Amino acid sequence: MKNTFGNNISVTLFGESHGEMIGAVLDGMAPGIPVDEAYIAHQMNLRRSANVMLSTARAEPDHVRIVSGVFEGKTTGTPITFLIENTNTRSKDYSAMRYIARPGHADYTAEMKYCGFQDPRGGGHFSGRITAGLVAAGAVALTALKGKGITVGTHIAACAGIRDRAFEDLTADLSTLNEKDFAVLDPAAEEEMKAAITAAKMEGDSVGGVLETAVLGLPAGVGEPWFDTVEGVLAHILFGIPAIKGVEFGAGFALAHQKGSKSNDPFRVENGKIVTSTNNCGGILGGITNGMPLLIRCAVKPTPSIYKEQETVDFGKCENSPLVIHGRHDPAIIHRARVVVDSAVALALCDLLATKYGTDWLMG
Amino acid sequence: MKNTFGNNISVTLFGESHGEMIGAVLDGMAPGIPVDEAYIAHQMNLRRSANVMLSTARAEPDHVRIVSGVFEGKTTGTPITFLIENTNTRSKDYSAMRYIARPGHADYTAEMKYCGFQDPRGGGHFSGRITAGLVAAGAVALTALKGKGITVGTHIAACAGIRDRAFEDLTADLSTLNEKDFAVLDPAAEEEMKAAITAAKMEGDSVGGVLETAVLGLPAGVGEPWFDTVEGVLAHILFGIPAIKGVEFGAGFALAHQKGSKSNDPFRVENGKIVTSTNNCGGILGGITNGMPLLIRCAVKPTPSIYKEQETVDFGKCENSPLVIHGRHDPAIIHRARVVVDSAVALALCDLLATKYGTDWLMG
Amino acid sequence: MKNTFGNNISVTLFGESHGEMIGAVLDGMAPGIPVDEAYIAHQMNLRRSANVMLSTARAEPDHVRIVSGVFEGKTTGTPITFLIENTNTRSKDYSAMRYIARPGHADYTAEMKYCGFQDPRGGGHFSGRITAGLVAAGAVALTALKGKGITVGTHIAACAGIRDRAFEDLTADLSTLNEKDFAVLDPAAEEEMKAAITAAKMEGDSVGGVLETAVLGLPAGVGEPWFDTVEGVLAHILFGIPAIKGVEFGAGFALAHQKGSKSNDPFRVENGKIVTSTNNCGGILGGITNGMPLLIRCAVKPTPSIYKEQETVDFGKCENSPLVIHGRHDPAIIHRARVVVDSAVALALCDLLATKYGTDWLMG
Amino acid sequence: MKNTFGNNISVTLFGESHGEMIGAVLDGMAPGIPVDEAYIAHQMNLRRSANVMLSTARAEPDHVRIVSGVFEGKTTGTPITFLIENTNTRSKDYSAMRYIARPGHADYTAEMKYCGFQDPRGGGHFSGRITAGLVAAGAVALTALKGKGITVGTHIAACAGIRDRAFEDLTADLSTLNEKDFAVLDPAAEEEMKAAITAAKMEGDSVGGVLETAVLGLPAGVGEPWFDTVEGVLAHILFGIPAIKGVEFGAGFALAHQKGSKSNDPFRVENGKIVTSTNNCGGILGGITNGMPLLIRCAVKPTPSIYKEQETVDFGKCENSPLVIHGRHDPAIIHRARVVVDSAVALALCDLLATKYGTDWLMG
Repeated sequence: MKNTFGNNISVTLFGESHGEMIGAVLDGMAPGIPVDEAYIAHQMNLRRSANVMLSTARAEPDHVRIVSGVFEGKTTGTPITFLIENTNTRSKDYSAMRYIARPGHADYTAEMKYCGFQDPRGGGHFSGRITAGLVAAGAVALTALKGKGITVGTHIAACAGIRDRAFEDLTADLSTLNEKDFAVLDPAAEEEMKAAITAAKMEGDSVGGVLETAVLGLPAGVGEPWFDTVEGVLAHILFGIPAIKGVEFGAGFALAHQKGSKSNDPFRVENGKIVTSTNNCGGILGGITNGMPLLIRCAVKPTPSIYKEQETVDFGKCENSPLVIHGRHDPAIIHRARVVVDSAVALALCDLLATKYGTDWLMG
Repeated sequence: MKNTFGNNISVTLFGESHGEMIGAVLDGMAPGIPVDEAYIAHQMNLRRSANVMLSTARAEPDHVRIVSGVFEGKTTGTPITFLIENTNTRSKDYSAMRYIARPGHADYTAEMKYCGFQDPRGGGHFSGRITAGLVAAGAVALTALKGKGITVGTHIAACAGIRDRAFEDLTADLSTLNEKDFAVLDPAAEEEMKAAITAAKMEGDSVGGVLETAVLGLPAGVGEPWFDTVEGVLAHILFGIPAIKGVEFGAGFALAHQKGSKSNDPFRVENGKIVTSTNNCGGILGGITNGMPLLIRCAVKPTPSIYKEQETVDFGKCENSPLVIHGRHDPAIIHRARVVVDSAVALALCDLLATKYGTDWLMG
Repeated sequence: MKNTFGNNISVTLFGESHGEMIGAVLDGMAPGIPVDEAYIAHQMNLRRSANVMLSTARAEPDHVRIVSGVFEGKTTGTPITFLIENTNTRSKDYSAMRYIARPGHADYTAEMKYCGFQDPRGGGHFSGRITAGLVAAGAVALTALKGKGITVGTHIAACAGIRDRAFEDLTADLSTLNEKDFAVLDPAAEEEMKAAITAAKMEGDSVGGVLETAVLGLPAGVGEPWFDTVEGVLAHILFGIPAIKGVEFGAGFALAHQKGSKSNDPFRVENGKIVTSTNNCGGILGGITNGMPLLIRCAVKPTPSIYKEQETVDFGKCENSPLVIHGRHDPAIIHRARVVVDSAVALALCDLLATKYGTDWLMG
Repeated sequence: MKNTFGNNISVTLFGESHGEMIGAVLDGMAPGIPVDEAYIAHQMNLRRSANVMLSTARAEPDHVRIVSGVFEGKTTGTPITFLIENTNTRSKDYSAMRYIARPGHADYTAEMKYCGFQDPRGGGHFSGRITAGLVAAGAVALTALKGKGITVGTHIAACAGIRDRAFEDLTADLSTLNEKDFAVLDPAAEEEMKAAITAAKMEGDSVGGVLETAVLGLPAGVGEPWFDTVEGVLAHILFGIPAIKGVEFGAGFALAHQKGSKSNDPFRVENGKIVTSTNNCGGILGGITNGMPLLIRCAVKPTPSIYKEQETVDFGKCENSPLVIHGRHDPAIIHRARVVVDSAVALALCDLLATKYGTDWLMG
């Protein structure tokens, strides 16, 4: 499916950066899940990074209006539609850029795909703004998981070359992260990262980083062999998030340089439960969960919108055309992408759980 | 779908390591594609690594029998069924291991998923042997792509800590690689890697590495925004290959530590065609191809079967049970996985191309 | 998929009868299709049967707001979102009925499926009103087909036991029907049907009928063997329309009582083109179009809402509870269902055509 | 999907009438379902109509070989592959017919779809013989349903204009039917039908009929609104069966001529359970099961292969070419199609049940 993801629980995204509305339809979610508008607003604010002030000046209110699928404060089991108006679009900023391929953006590939009919304003359907619908739908998925004792959380493991400390006590760490606007565990690293982002902004440049996600409480036995592996399904949705260019599980690329005697996670019985002593596999063996925490890392490329002059082309005229971008842009999106990753992970996991346990299992 | 991948062109895998047969069904492939049994046999041999002799002693002939979907040497457009007999299975090797969770293997997760009904012999449905069906189907996909001027090739970019040289002239490099049994570009690195694999074998240990794949000749405009991105679709199928624990595109995780002014690929007009000067994005922007080569890297974990004693559990008795594995095992599978990666990439790209251009486009 | 239909071109329906909004998302439609709001409004009016006055007193304005996927009057290729507000819902009519199973309605099955969390007002998500989104999306699909010379049209072949004349000159008949509010070819039959509907209304009863649809201009070779047959795909979406309880193609059930020598359609060459002399197969052989007109008939059951007292149950108390329904109800919906059938057929055919010819073929 | 049906439990069909093998892959079936080869052989014999001798002289042994997905006599949860060899294909019968469009067959539509690359021998992939794979997979589905107290059965409600008696005591009637080779309840009707089939054979002609299916024991609340309605999903797979040209549920087309006061099924409480007094809706309201028996009727067209001379075309030369068919052909297939219908219904219901209750529910 093009803009729809999931089999038993699916999410459909729609909208353009400067169109009338953006949003999402979440279908297949179990009935009876509480829908807390304050929690949705909280997640939307994390995405806007409203309290961090390292981001774009575009002050989107991002009010989410739910127009179907919720009755008396709970999901009905039918499609839930989330609408967000685009209220502050300043389209004039973009009008001269219709045929200019911004490096690192999808302007040129959109032209090749949609033959000139795409909405070119502000990146159109490829804008990072479209992730707002994913976050709204993800808030319901996160609530449903929480009802089953499953927690998702993400920290900025690295940004602009600065590293956060590693996960230690996962329960405590996730709890801390889910209260924070800028999701870094080590306060010193947090300050350094913020300073680096501000410095990049001053230079008219941008930075990227690595997001590390953990999921606690997943039962063993979830996932499907060969194609709907937990890794495959999660990577599929995660690569839909703009700027993500790498996904790894457990020790990931580091495993490539280890020996088997080190990378294999020994099993052992602990309090009558089968666990592994290490978690190099990230909680997944043969594509199926083993009951240990899921560990996922995503590479986030630097925001492509920078203020420095760049070489590029006018694809209308098929000629070179140097470019200086004006307008509102973020020197980093990694602190905003973090809640998008949580949302995507939650939606994909709800779908895998519904496949194994049926539609109603998440109901509680 | 569980064991089926793809929308317009789909592949279904079936079989168990020690069952009667393994194989694949390839559906939706355009009619009129030549099916060359010698080429399929060549690909199967690459997977078996028959000429490299660094691998398991299990001498599977891997003869592929095509029992449907091919008529007068060409695809008919209807499902193509590939069957491979399991002729040399020595099941006795495994009978004592029914309830032993081999570390790094799917034994325990299979038990949790299939409630004890799974075929436990030789890893059952989770065995790397099941990739033989993917390679057979992939041979047809690779032929179809070649008919449209699209080439896929992979080298072992790193193994046991030893690095191959980077890609230089992609056309020449892919041509070289597709002739080689052990896909390394730099002969010195090749010798070092082989020595390291042999050394690991002597120690009863195993090694992993990184596979780097390039695709040449893909048109711009292929892929779908948000969910069926080229990255998402490729990663989905690639993570189905056992041992792959990370996937990145273009500069991948390295982008996380760059500035936007460096990571953005400048566009320019070259001989009337729009190209990028660098290829940090790996040929994909906004999930859509930009006409540059696709660049994909996969992290391959060390083979989990090692001869050293390991701590693990008997999940039948739920008690600790140290394990020494006997029988035939590979100290490395990266040189064999390479053709599985090519096959998976080819199948996924055929599907994306069929979505854009229709079923018959690959016909030629 | 639950509320999503289609592979390459898909439609997602959402909303409840008395919720805030209902609507649809149409994804995968080719870019460059003109979106004519007047034509959409015309189709919406046919569904409301605004000019026929045999229907419910509920005066829904049914204004369709398109909030994504259209730019400068044409489809962009990205998801098109259609929103329709529920402005006149009078929820009080229904509040006492929460646990009453109206015979012929989905109240009881909704309770069994959604465990009491469904929106019970006015049939909730099962209301015929949800077809408004299908009609809005269908208007774009009908436009796209028209651009390729493919025409869809439906008449009321029978209603309340009165039969319309058979199709004669299909081109002329479809042209006539697509101008009419009450789609009957024979004016005398039209008057009789209207009188019978009015009579049923007077009695507090309702009537059903048969809709017969033709599609002209479809190329031969469309459809897939075994499962995505033209019949299977069309029947799948058509049975989604409330009240449809039978679907047949060509001579349909009448074929059951013929001999093969009569039911086989002889082929012949006519003006250098291969045609059939009769069309008992309804333009489909082996699930694939043969280039002749498609012929589809749907059985429409009488509207279940009637004013006569009915025996039923209170499923909250699990006890018998006789019921007299009050409020606004239609004595017939067949004249309104006709445009829903055209829309569903058009959407399914666009999807099958996109599978064969690719995403962009409908672009023109 | 082209030759794959189902979301959570899926079946893939492959093969050509005169190719090496035909078969099916059944994926997603719960682990632990007993696989009884004698029962599968029984079902295969019903399809061959081996004991009825009204059918083709082609004496196919139809031995089913299961090469994956079954271990120690039970399903493992992984894909089950069924293979059936084509041992007696007499391809010479067909060689002269490559470009001749047999009326009522898919020869011409296959040519239009597959551009001349299709296997033309004996109808190739469009042959009714391909249903053998569906029956083998269906046998496992029927066993799984039986384990949950769900029974499926079909009678020949009409054939050659002769009607069987209506269903009376469904439990007893299904039990009777599932023991019979020629599934008619009324012995007198059975004799008349057999005589009519024999008479048609003498004339070189063929006959069709109506199959009526009932399903007992389905829980209420199964099915999905709008698109994966029980009617839509069942009709989708049923129309894949060659010769089926109409599908109706409950009173079906007869509802079109009733009043709502008659067609509505009154609910009432019986022994503390909610039931309906009549079953005009065939056990489905709003696309969801209501706990009453499912009632389905399929129109089966007469076998298209007849011995009378027919007008047709040579599509290679694009010219008229009268045709007399030689070789083995059935004067009726309705008595053989009956087990195909049972199989298709069982597979689709398993999928719908797995959607609601999860993968493992059918395990028992």
